[in-house]
Amino acid sequence: MEKVNLQEKLDRFQDYWHPRIVGELNGQHVKLAKLKGEFVWHSHDEEDELFLVLEGAFTMEFRDRTVHLAKGEFLIVPRGIEHRPVAENEVSILLFEPVSTVNTGNSESNLTRKNLEHL
Amino acid sequence: MEKVNLQEKLDRFQDYWHPRIVGELNGQHVKLAKLKGEFVWHSHDEEDELFLVLEGAFTMEFRDRTVHLAKGEFLIVPRGIEHRPVAENEVSILLFEPVSTVNTGNSESNLTRKNLEHL
Repeated sequence: MEKVNLQEKLDRFQDYWHPRIVGELNGQHVKLAKLKGEFVWHSHDEEDELFLVLEGAFTMEFRDRTVHLAKGEFLIVPRGIEHRPVAENEVSILLFEPVSTVNTGNSESNLTRKNLEHL
Repeated sequence: MEKVNLQEKLDRFQDYWHPRIVGELNGQHVKLAKLKGEFVWHSHDEEDELFLVLEGAFTMEFRDRTVHLAKGEFLIVPRGIEHRPVAENEVSILLFEPVSTVNTGNSESNLTRKNLEHL
């Protein structure tokens, strides 16, 4: 039962689109990630995902609209909804999602990250 | 599927120890609360709780030690562990916890808040 300092954890990695696990509770993971550029279109069959911006800003694209998210804002993407994060500049985010969640959902590719590191 | 601005939601209430719901996913609630003073000792039989400090600082007391939490830090309190938040000055926090969670856990009192408002 140790506290987690978000900035201290963020300082420990620099690669993009590669989430790290920083907490687990009730079958959910708390993850941190840095994003820059365009991700792949994907959805998660069984998992809702929360994206909270810690530093910077990015855009969540949906097939019919986009949502711009800045520091201190979060968005919940329900299961089954296709989405694609796009970050013009580097952004740091916190994710809250079931432990079963894979970053690329139903679109496995070379961007897929499994067996995530616990920081 | 609307984004949530944490500060905008925090500006909408001022009372202490009275969480508001600002999101729901995977059977979990995202809540915001403002704390000042001493809460009651309690535990939750079935729910782990995450406390993330958005503004200010507070201390989580356990029976055998205390953890001081400042802005940008979070702590996960596992189910069954007695705890008591104490805030010398006002603090704003974000909570992640199952929808079944009651703020005072097994210590129902006049501080218990049920049927929480969705902001």
